[in-house]
Amino acid sequence: MKFKVSAQLGYAAKSTGTIILNIHALRTERQKVLEETFTITPQTDAEELITATTNNRFIRFDIKEPGDYNITYDALVDNYFEVHNYKKYTDISISNLHPDVLLYLSPSRYCQSDKLYRLAENEFGNLANNYNKAVAITKWIHNHVEYLSGSSTSETSAYDTVAQQAGVCRDFAHLGIALCRALSIPARYFTGYSYMLIPQDFHACFEAYIGGEWLLFDATRLSPLNGFVKIATGRDAADASIASMFGDINNTTIKVDCQFADEGEFSPFYHYPSVFDAVTYM
Amino acid sequence: MKFKVSAQLGYAAKSTGTIILNIHALRTERQKVLEETFTITPQTDAEELITATTNNRFIRFDIKEPGDYNITYDALVDNYFEVHNYKKYTDISISNLHPDVLLYLSPSRYCQSDKLYRLAENEFGNLANNYNKAVAITKWIHNHVEYLSGSSTSETSAYDTVAQQAGVCRDFAHLGIALCRALSIPARYFTGYSYMLIPQDFHACFEAYIGGEWLLFDATRLSPLNGFVKIATGRDAADASIASMFGDINNTTIKVDCQFADEGEFSPFYHYPSVFDAVTYM
Amino acid sequence: MKFKVSAQLGYAAKSTGTIILNIHALRTERQKVLEETFTITPQTDAEELITATTNNRFIRFDIKEPGDYNITYDALVDNYFEVHNYKKYTDISISNLHPDVLLYLSPSRYCQSDKLYRLAENEFGNLANNYNKAVAITKWIHNHVEYLSGSSTSETSAYDTVAQQAGVCRDFAHLGIALCRALSIPARYFTGYSYMLIPQDFHACFEAYIGGEWLLFDATRLSPLNGFVKIATGRDAADASIASMFGDINNTTIKVDCQFADEGEFSPFYHYPSVFDAVTYM
Amino acid sequence: MKFKVSAQLGYAAKSTGTIILNIHALRTERQKVLEETFTITPQTDAEELITATTNNRFIRFDIKEPGDYNITYDALVDNYFEVHNYKKYTDISISNLHPDVLLYLSPSRYCQSDKLYRLAENEFGNLANNYNKAVAITKWIHNHVEYLSGSSTSETSAYDTVAQQAGVCRDFAHLGIALCRALSIPARYFTGYSYMLIPQDFHACFEAYIGGEWLLFDATRLSPLNGFVKIATGRDAADASIASMFGDINNTTIKVDCQFADEGEFSPFYHYPSVFDAVTYM
Repeated sequence: MKFKVSAQLGYAAKSTGTIILNIHALRTERQKVLEETFTITPQTDAEELITATTNNRFIRFDIKEPGDYNITYDALVDNYFEVHNYKKYTDISISNLHPDVLLYLSPSRYCQSDKLYRLAENEFGNLANNYNKAVAITKWIHNHVEYLSGSSTSETSAYDTVAQQAGVCRDFAHLGIALCRALSIPARYFTGYSYMLIPQDFHACFEAYIGGEWLLFDATRLSPLNGFVKIATGRDAADASIASMFGDINNTTIKVDCQFADEGEFSPFYHYPSVFDAVTYM
Repeated sequence: MKFKVSAQLGYAAKSTGTIILNIHALRTERQKVLEETFTITPQTDAEELITATTNNRFIRFDIKEPGDYNITYDALVDNYFEVHNYKKYTDISISNLHPDVLLYLSPSRYCQSDKLYRLAENEFGNLANNYNKAVAITKWIHNHVEYLSGSSTSETSAYDTVAQQAGVCRDFAHLGIALCRALSIPARYFTGYSYMLIPQDFHACFEAYIGGEWLLFDATRLSPLNGFVKIATGRDAADASIASMFGDINNTTIKVDCQFADEGEFSPFYHYPSVFDAVTYM
Repeated sequence: MKFKVSAQLGYAAKSTGTIILNIHALRTERQKVLEETFTITPQTDAEELITATTNNRFIRFDIKEPGDYNITYDALVDNYFEVHNYKKYTDISISNLHPDVLLYLSPSRYCQSDKLYRLAENEFGNLANNYNKAVAITKWIHNHVEYLSGSSTSETSAYDTVAQQAGVCRDFAHLGIALCRALSIPARYFTGYSYMLIPQDFHACFEAYIGGEWLLFDATRLSPLNGFVKIATGRDAADASIASMFGDINNTTIKVDCQFADEGEFSPFYHYPSVFDAVTYM
Repeated sequence: MKFKVSAQLGYAAKSTGTIILNIHALRTERQKVLEETFTITPQTDAEELITATTNNRFIRFDIKEPGDYNITYDALVDNYFEVHNYKKYTDISISNLHPDVLLYLSPSRYCQSDKLYRLAENEFGNLANNYNKAVAITKWIHNHVEYLSGSSTSETSAYDTVAQQAGVCRDFAHLGIALCRALSIPARYFTGYSYMLIPQDFHACFEAYIGGEWLLFDATRLSPLNGFVKIATGRDAADASIASMFGDINNTTIKVDCQFADEGEFSPFYHYPSVFDAVTYM
């Protein structure tokens, strides 16, 4: 399915410095970037970083003099998701998990799974399998946590969200990840453009590794699961932040858009707990 | 009802210093101390502190030379509790609460009610009145939190216990207090000797102010509500700690006992959520 | 010395509820309230609460219908402070502290002295006496913590301020209190009107109990120590908050003023570490 | 230089499960594993995991029935370190850092550099270059933090250690990493066997990326910088834990040894702040 996505970011630099952005659509087997433009005004050289540890697309550029900088990113992306049925499948034991997946079992900065395992066991431990557990976790978060702009900060973690019961998409995702890991289900953070999200913004949700696939869960229920253009995955928001600024540089504006750009009608797919179908992008 | 209570505490002092104990049975209208002995070995002068702000019985004494010190406290206490029925009663609005009670609405060190109000509202906000809410809170804690020695420290707060779901009597009490206050129900910490508690130790639970009475709740369900000899009340454990040591002084041993010392049979009274009766000591 | 103080507070009530204010000038031996008016618009009955545990002046009133409410407080206050010299004095041992003062040795919500005693010992433990320690603590905070509006929240505690090194007057006060208590110096929170504070606002600082007096310290150095009109004291901000609202009620505006209203010239007195003089109001 | 290292670990398994160990000597250009044996009693199959993101050597094996398990690891390792002089060198700007190094600039679970940047700037911001800063950080930690077994837990982070000023090698390392990153110096966690460490145990310290090399720093000063056999590196202890157990499995014993096994005399090299030499292993 084709989507047109765009992001416009403004920065006020009071000093020289460096910015690293992570707003480019990911290139994967299932997501092709058909067209893409990236401009910085005033014109500034930028490089795409290639790392050994992740295929997230980090763009680095230097701010060589103080001033206002505007970034524009536009892309036409073609991706496809699959919907699998998880009524009958077999959990993968830890001893059979691919080594690259084990990383996503560990607690991380915002997902202190080691401190939430009793909660996870008490609420979800008796469910039949990892799919049921992940679905129940997503539902529990949706029911217990209020989506409330401004209720959390960049320091808020899953541990806080359990107690405070309010947050934004990032907090919903962190809590989902932490509860999955507490039950030995690998889980990771996912950022992307999101069609039909109101208001438009970068969105975050989480993927759980179930039956050999990374399944997508969104406890906010704010956008259809089949309307995403993936930007990045990571252990939590610390691995996939939209922008890192080094120097006295502040973000001033942010504008995001995601449009359906394919033939036919878009048929939104939301996950309902009663259904055994789940969406996977990769 | 008469109880014989005793406490034996050992301290190793590597320096001179001061110890303040709070182990004496409280003297109230409903609790008479019939006999009482308090000794320090080697013999040391001690004074009972009289303060303007609390009638808790603090005993202060100086450690004038390093060494081992043993404290023995024995008392015969006669107290009575009342069992009231709360099927029909009227909640007291904040505007009618006695000023001395308002203090117990504020968040405190271990009871961060200001950070738990969404949880409290979500779980208990719809219940009919403060009695029902306090009963439901007690039941919820009993069902969600595991009593587990060593699972918490002196820094553990209600905020932690919500996430970690394990603790000791002190943690159960703090969580009960925090959730009550989050719903504008005054609540305070209570320490005492506790008949039939196994193993014998100082016990902590909480009182909620409902219908003009301080009602006793024990989310641990480890001892009968009518088997207490009250030592102290306060905002939380910071106000009612068994011992405060100033200097290089450590507690080495602790032994506590509480025996029924009245005629007839002791008939243990545990609170059950289905019943509208509640125990009040004062 | 006479000061005219005033406060104007606006509240938007979306529900009925209750407000408790703590903005009235304290009445003490050394602070006389000569004139005072307090009005609520629209007209609303209010009562001053008399409690057994504090002489802070809490004013309680009910919001009987939703709407906008404006509070005006004006007072003419005559107080005097004393300046004592602490070059030669004797520390009071814990065994000789008045029982009512012991309370201010304990850790509290925002002042976790029990977690900061190594820091306190390492930085200040070798100083000659409690006066020198309190002066050094005040200076250390001034040098290490940046005064920065918006850098802290109502949840920020002394523990956080040690690491984050930024805060507002409340945070400076909490850290001072915590470090004093960690060294067994009783310390308490102080709120007041403050002449020459720019911009005008309620101010917070701390008092340490030294040589039998409560001495005033202000690590922010933002206002003269002899320009205060005392509102309240307490263990920390939890005991002395300007306003507590019960119901869906929000503060919308706040305006504070403090003018010198006596004959002659006001001669501002700031504390300098090299001097052995200290200010006490009570 | 050749070292013989060994580790013996005991586990009590009350259930089936999986253990992942990270105790094998790392294989790098500068560290050769000459001989190595690894046994599990009772005999159990184990596999070495190969991951895309790290060359740490994780060993995974299943516990197929409850019981006691003993692990023995022995190795003969030949490694070499270099001592470079950093009197004259050029800091690498963020825009020139290798992409794989950027990861080590981000805050992580135990190293909240984003919350400590004012502290870092205030204490070290004025120093001439990254080498001087890293040396000063190491010295500052050594002077401010007490090495005290049992003073911290697996949840203790750099943020805590700043306030509590006590910890073990892991805490010293986390604080060093966090302060480096707060100054935009890449830093990572390092675990290893350590010759002359008393008592023998796994040791942790940190590496800072300076002038294109990973330099080794040990704020504990408990062992010579040239006596290490490297096991793992990572963002913090969450990436390099000695053992991860899945199931009801507990570690019961741990015994570690590291002996010099080369010709000649071992000449211990400790870092002194006045010297511009630094050790790098890789």
